[in-house]
Order: sequence, then C-alpha cells, then structure tokens
Amino acid sequence: MKTIDLNCDMGEGFGVYSLGDDKAMLDIVTSANIACGFHAGDPLVMADTLASAKARGVGCGAHPSFMDLWGFGRRPILGQSVGEIEKQLIYQIGALQALAHAQGFKLAHVKTHGSLGNMANEDIELARAVARAIKAVDPGFIFIVMPGLPTERAGEEMGLKVAREIYADRAYADNGNLASRKLPGAVLHDAEAAAERVLRIVESGEVVSISGARIPVRADTVCVHGDTADAVAMARAVRTRLEGAGYGVRPMAEWL
Amino acid sequence: MKTIDLNCDMGEGFGVYSLGDDKAMLDIVTSANIACGFHAGDPLVMADTLASAKARGVGCGAHPSFMDLWGFGRRPILGQSVGEIEKQLIYQIGALQALAHAQGFKLAHVKTHGSLGNMANEDIELARAVARAIKAVDPGFIFIVMPGLPTERAGEEMGLKVAREIYADRAYADNGNLASRKLPGAVLHDAEAAAERVLRIVESGEVVSISGARIPVRADTVCVHGDTADAVAMARAVRTRLEGAGYGVRPMAEWL
Amino acid sequence: MKTIDLNCDMGEGFGVYSLGDDKAMLDIVTSANIACGFHAGDPLVMADTLASAKARGVGCGAHPSFMDLWGFGRRPILGQSVGEIEKQLIYQIGALQALAHAQGFKLAHVKTHGSLGNMANEDIELARAVARAIKAVDPGFIFIVMPGLPTERAGEEMGLKVAREIYADRAYADNGNLASRKLPGAVLHDAEAAAERVLRIVESGEVVSISGARIPVRADTVCVHGDTADAVAMARAVRTRLEGAGYGVRPMAEWL
Amino acid sequence: MKTIDLNCDMGEGFGVYSLGDDKAMLDIVTSANIACGFHAGDPLVMADTLASAKARGVGCGAHPSFMDLWGFGRRPILGQSVGEIEKQLIYQIGALQALAHAQGFKLAHVKTHGSLGNMANEDIELARAVARAIKAVDPGFIFIVMPGLPTERAGEEMGLKVAREIYADRAYADNGNLASRKLPGAVLHDAEAAAERVLRIVESGEVVSISGARIPVRADTVCVHGDTADAVAMARAVRTRLEGAGYGVRPMAEWL
Repeated sequence: MKTIDLNCDMGEGFGVYSLGDDKAMLDIVTSANIACGFHAGDPLVMADTLASAKARGVGCGAHPSFMDLWGFGRRPILGQSVGEIEKQLIYQIGALQALAHAQGFKLAHVKTHGSLGNMANEDIELARAVARAIKAVDPGFIFIVMPGLPTERAGEEMGLKVAREIYADRAYADNGNLASRKLPGAVLHDAEAAAERVLRIVESGEVVSISGARIPVRADTVCVHGDTADAVAMARAVRTRLEGAGYGVRPMAEWL
Repeated sequence: MKTIDLNCDMGEGFGVYSLGDDKAMLDIVTSANIACGFHAGDPLVMADTLASAKARGVGCGAHPSFMDLWGFGRRPILGQSVGEIEKQLIYQIGALQALAHAQGFKLAHVKTHGSLGNMANEDIELARAVARAIKAVDPGFIFIVMPGLPTERAGEEMGLKVAREIYADRAYADNGNLASRKLPGAVLHDAEAAAERVLRIVESGEVVSISGARIPVRADTVCVHGDTADAVAMARAVRTRLEGAGYGVRPMAEWL
Repeated sequence: MKTIDLNCDMGEGFGVYSLGDDKAMLDIVTSANIACGFHAGDPLVMADTLASAKARGVGCGAHPSFMDLWGFGRRPILGQSVGEIEKQLIYQIGALQALAHAQGFKLAHVKTHGSLGNMANEDIELARAVARAIKAVDPGFIFIVMPGLPTERAGEEMGLKVAREIYADRAYADNGNLASRKLPGAVLHDAEAAAERVLRIVESGEVVSISGARIPVRADTVCVHGDTADAVAMARAVRTRLEGAGYGVRPMAEWL
Repeated sequence: MKTIDLNCDMGEGFGVYSLGDDKAMLDIVTSANIACGFHAGDPLVMADTLASAKARGVGCGAHPSFMDLWGFGRRPILGQSVGEIEKQLIYQIGALQALAHAQGFKLAHVKTHGSLGNMANEDIELARAVARAIKAVDPGFIFIVMPGLPTERAGEEMGLKVAREIYADRAYADNGNLASRKLPGAVLHDAEAAAERVLRIVESGEVVSISGARIPVRADTVCVHGDTADAVAMARAVRTRLEGAGYGVRPMAEWL
C-alpha cells in the first residue's frame, strides 16, 4: 500500500495568545511540528500540544526556530555562526523531548521553522548544523527536508532518516525551493485545486515550478496549515484526495 | 575517608553580559549549578559552561528558575499552579540535558534557583512538583535540598537521591531555612570565619541559628558563590579548611 | 445632559498575535486603554491602535502593566519597590505618548492593567506611585480609579483629574474592590442583565456587593470588554441602555 | 574658542547585569547616549543613568536599537519595513524622554545603536525613517550622524540639527563608514595614538581611510567607549589631548 504523512505546525500560542485551530488539525494530520518557545510556544502550550497529539495518535516533532517571539521566527537574523545556531536547536529540541518523555513517549522528528528553515534550504553549512543538532539529541530522529535542497543532502550525509516534504499551498521556484510569497500566485487558496496538485506531485514524482520548469521531487510528507478556516478546509481536502487515491495516511515514524 | 561536595551557581551570563568568575570557581568547586535560560544563561553560555566544567572534572547540574530574566529569578512570581511550574522545570532541565548529551555526558543533579528555591523550601506541594519534574526527566538525578525542609521530604518521597546542602555565607532561621538577607548578620563576609563555621557544621551535624537555636543538619554539599572577588576567596578558604580536616572534596555523583 | 464614558482595553496583540475585536469595540466605546508593550502591545500595534481610535473619535490612554508578556500582566510579581514600579510606568506612558504625538494628538488618560491595577487598589503607597508616574509624564492626564479605593485617594492627593470607574461584568466585594473571579457569580455573562445593572449603579450612585452590602460609588466611566463575541454584545447593550436612559456617551476628556 | 563634544554609550546594563564603567565615563564625556530597553537598559537603569549624567552636567540622548537584548542590538534583523523601524524608535525615544521629563529636564540628542546604526549609514530610506522618528518626538533634538553618509543627508533634509561624529578607536573604509571590525587594524587600542589621530582629524578636517584614501570629515563630536579599562584610558587621553590643543570640550546642546 502507498503511504504518506501529513504534517502541520502546532502549539504556536504563547501565554494568553493562541494561533491556529490545533484541535481541528489533529484530526487531519499525522505529524505535529511543535513550537519550542523561541518563535512561539511555552512549556504549558508545549505540554498540552504533546498530550493532545499523543491522544489522537499523531506523531510529535520539534519545530525549533531563531529566538524571535516578536517576529514569529520569520525574520532573517544575521550575525550568528552556524555553531551558535546549532546550540540553540539542541536547547529547543531537548526541552520538548523532556516534556514528551515526562508523558511517556518520544519525539519522532524535527522540522525547522520560518526564516531558519528558509536559510537552511539555501546554505549547506547551516543545513549541516541543523542535522548535527538533531543527531546530537537523538540519532533516531527523522529530519523533515526539502527534496533536492541542502537540508536533504545534510540529513543524508549525517546518516539521519529524512522525510522529504512538499507543500500543499505554495508554488515552487526553479531550484526546488518555495517561491517567494510576494510573487503573484505563490500561495494557493483553492482547497480542491491544492489537493489535486498534491496528488499530481505525489503520483508523478515531479512538481511544476512557477515558471513552468519540471522539478523531480519525492514526497514522504505533505505540509498543510491550520492558521485559518480555509487552511483547515484545504488540509481536509488534501487528506481526502490522497485517501481516495489509495494512499494510507499515517505518521512517518510508523513506516519511513 | 570523609567526603563532601562543593557546589556553585554558574553560567549566569546572557548574551554580552557575564556574571561572576566561573573560571576561578571551576578550580575550587566540584559541582556546577548551570542556569538554563530562564533567569540567566542562554544556549551558548550553557554549552560553554558545560564544556568548561567537564574539562575540569566538575559535575554539572541544572539550575532552573522562574522565567524572569529581568529580575534574575529573585522575584516571587505568584499566580502559577504547581503543575505549571513543573512543566517549566522539565523544559529547562531537558534543554540543558540535551546540551550535555551533545558533549557526550550526563547531568548529575538539579538545584532550583532564587525565588523558586525559596518558595519550594516553604511549600511541600511546590517541592513535590520540583521533585516530580526532576524524576520525569531522569530518575537518576540527585536533588539538592535543604535538610529538614520540604525539598528534602519531597525528594525522599519521590525516591530521588538527595544531596543535603548547607550555605557557607548565610545565617539560618530557627526553622532551618536561610535567614532573610535583610537581617543584620544574615550574610557572612569573612572568609576564614565562614570556612571555620562550615567545618563546625559538618563535623557537629548541627547549625546554630541566628537566634541561637541548634538545628540538626546533615551536609553532603556546601554552597559557595563566585560573584565577587571576596566570594571566590571565601570558597577557596572553605575548600582548604575542609581538606585540612581530612575531607575528600569530590563531585557528589561519585560518592553519594 | 447627563454624560458618561465607556472604556475598554485595546491594542493587546503582540507580533503575529491578536486579542479581542478592537475594531468592533471602537464603534462602541469612547475611551481606549492601550497596552504599552509590557503585558501586551508592541510599537506597531500601539501605533495602529492609536490611529484607529483617533479616526473614530475615541479618546486614547495608556494601559501600563508589570513587565510580564508571558503572564499577560495578570500575575502578582513581588519584590519590586514602588519607586521601581513608578519608573516602569513612566517608561510605558512616555512610549505611548510619543507615538500619539507623532500622529498629532495627545493621550487623555491612564489606567493600570491587571495585577498592577489590583495591587494599587489595595495599597495606598503603590497607588501614590502610580499617581506620581502619571503626573510626572503629564499633570493633565486623567487617572481612571476605583471609587472609594486607594487609587481614587492617591489621584486626588496628587491633584490629578480622576475618572471613577465601574465594571459592567464584574461583581463587587464589600470593600468596593472587584470580587475574586473565582467566586461563583463574580463574572456576569448576560448582556441585558449587565446593562441593566450598569444603569442602576449609575442612577442610584451605589452598587450592591456580592454579599448584599450597598456601597456608594460615583461612575464617570464604565469598563467593558471586547475579548469575546459575548463581551462585544454586552458592551453594545450597555451603551444602548445608557443612551436610552438619556445619557450622552462621550470621551471623558471632553467633559470631565 | 574651538569647541567639541565627546559622546559615549551608557546605561547598557539590564537587571542585575552591568556593562562598562559609566561612573568613570561621566567624568570624561559631555554627552551620554542612553540605551532605551531594546538592546540593553531597563526603566531603572535608564532613570539612574539620566540622574547620574544630569548631576555631572553631561547632556543626555536616546540610544535606540533593534529589539534584540540577546544580541545586544548588534545583529542585523531583516524583514522589517522602515515604517516599522520608525515606530520602534519613537517608542524608545519617548520612553527615555518621559523619564528625563520626570527628573525635570529634556533630552538633547539621539544616536542609533549597533546594527541599526550601521544599516542607516548605508540606506537612505532607513536613515530618513530614523530622522522622521526623531523629528516626530521633538524637532529640537540633535541627530548624531556620520559625515558624508546617508544619516547626515537625512538629518539635513528633515531640518534637524546634526552633530557629525568621528570615532576615536575605529579605522575607516573609503566611503567614510567604519571599516569592518574583522579587518586587521580596524580597532585601535593605543590610547595616545588614538588621541593623536582624533586631534589630527579634527584639525585637518579629513580622515585617512584604512586603504590610505583621504576623506573630508567635519567633527562635532567624538565617540569614545567605556566598556574596558583600556577604553576609559583612551577616552581620557582623547579629552586631554583636545583640551591641550585649545578645544573647549562641552555638551553639544550648549554650542551646536
């Protein structure tokens, strides 16, 4: 049977603030990328999100970021060495791992957030630092990477299991990275069209870039979002379409 | 041979800021209580402090706190349930533990910081939350406690190894807790007098409170400070006096 | 004509996070208490909230707090002198005042937030520090106070204009302070009942406490909330009821 | 009589942390650039620094920064519009201005810190945003600028008084900006050589760049540092040399 994972960023509240409809998404996705307190999340939100995900059989992973609560981790913060970033990642992954351990289970994966993730997909040295941080905490972790980009290469070099990821709602640049959100058409809003595109990518093993280029990609997991009602509907459509085409939608750690 | 440990708070810088003479103290003490980013410390300071301590054979432990960088963890922050505090501790201990693991070793102990520590020494429910957090991360951790106070009781109830601690430079209240810093004579400044007092407490198994009461205490570890030149000198005097009296001064994890 | 003001806390987002329906509330209330970055708010949210309020003719005031983003300013943070708190207030009020000045207008009032506000209503020295901070920034500011409590007294002692405030959705203790949220019946949820009660308090000059005591109060302004759809409906009902009874609902600075 | 100002960054502590020898520097310099809580400083440190400076007749100015306590404002934080940065500056300047006002005096100047300052010296749109922020708070403020660079131009366009600044301890690039700290010889350490160079620049109206180019500069104020004992000695040497050559060293607001 063909198998695939659906992942979503979660636990991105902080104190009184909440963001996105985590409860709805936990009924749709199979892997939760949980914020670790640097761009969002706090020990209480983290523990609650772990418990909710575990109760629904959703796999949990760390979603570390630059330390940037105000900018939600979306701002490039320069002037940091890769070694400094590596230590920040170990801190965050270790904090979430301990909270999971306190609930009697282990994290399955790591996916970097926002600006850190974008930068690691364009800089092999940074990608290697991310992979080293993951391996340092637990060499059994799965590293969610972009196929064809430095994160995939760094993960493989380091001997980590990698989960290649495609995005349901984002257009691609010719190099296989996400196209800038500022370009027209870079963000997809139609749930059915996005679901159809996801299935096409998964089946064909290639994605058509925003300029029309065909890029080979392998998809182990599909990234969906839960920050708006439309996003939740799109995630549901993606899952429905994949299942309709015979895919088993299951947590990556069970089959990868 | 009689054995004892010397512990000191360390790694209490943040970014460009530093505090105390960690390098000097690492040549004197046998256990380092390392700040975990909530009252002080950041991933870089934490990793550096772990490496320096390990290189000198000093045992490392977590020194978690309320989240209060501005107040250095010294301010009572009310309105938090013990369950909420427990999760904050797991987060911090896990973060430091991962940084130690990345360097190939394990933490030995946990000691709470500042206002959190004071409150846990007066509130058995809070003390139990601290002990639960420690046990949740690693039941092999040693919990540094105050003899006769709720922390000791909670540690024993939870089946943790406890290290009973006395302070070199602080006077005691009749209940065995530290006397308020605001009382005259509550803080000792004379290095030789402090060293002499430490030896007397250790040998006699009792401390004389600020009002003259005799309180039975067992001392596994002596807390010394490194935030001023005088404090470093006092720490050195304490070690010299203990060794002169035939004590082996060794990391608690080696013999407790 | 009888006149009254309606005030509401606003601008309590931070970065990507938002809280409450400020746009809806700006069509209902006449005074906006704007968070100043310590419990919520940031320079961008503050500037946007000032502009939105000004565009609708709503008076603007500072809503300073303890520095406690994680706890939303609701946690008692002890261990701070009144002089230290005074400087924190001056900082916050000055920051918002400059942002208003940059848009060509002046703040009208100051109302303390959360735990700081509660503590000032029970501690005359703290209430005086608040009043001193307000006066230091601009002696023309109106200080929103609780009638019969230390804030009212401190404001009058300092020669500030005070706006006495009642709450639409909260029950009262016998001393005229708000009853603890934890008591049954302490928070009102029925919009029409709350509106009716507000009118009764305003007309009669007294409030009936949760235990049945009659407390004399003078109401210059009514505090309403906008954090839930129900709260917005209640605020609307309060305004409708007051206008129906012949009250002019206008910004306090225009008539106080 | 020839007149010049000496300026120094101050008030860069935070909570228990301190940085630099402000007391020593206040006896040497005539203008203090006071951190505003974003890269360093807090309301208490700010108020204390204002009081100390005022007591010694040293002029006070705001030293705003990116919001980056961990990076001390030295890290380029991208992804912010100039309008967003403008509001952050107004916030900070307003906060310090209110604290000065509470002590009965006014700020004299504004100088941007760290990475924000560097970026404004290379980007005219950002420099204009800085100038707009300054003017919005008080059009009477003096803007400390680098001669020949965008900050000078923006200040003049906006009709602000500008104080052209040279650095005692830094080498220059050919475009008149500071040479990167990473280049050999970019930071001067010899106090007498630095003092001699300052006098030569001031007298000749030109600075020789690190590559030997002659760049015309006008110097109204000389930036000195107080973060190490060597830096304090250099600042003292610069003042002594300038006074020896007949310069009156006085706060810029008195004569500019």
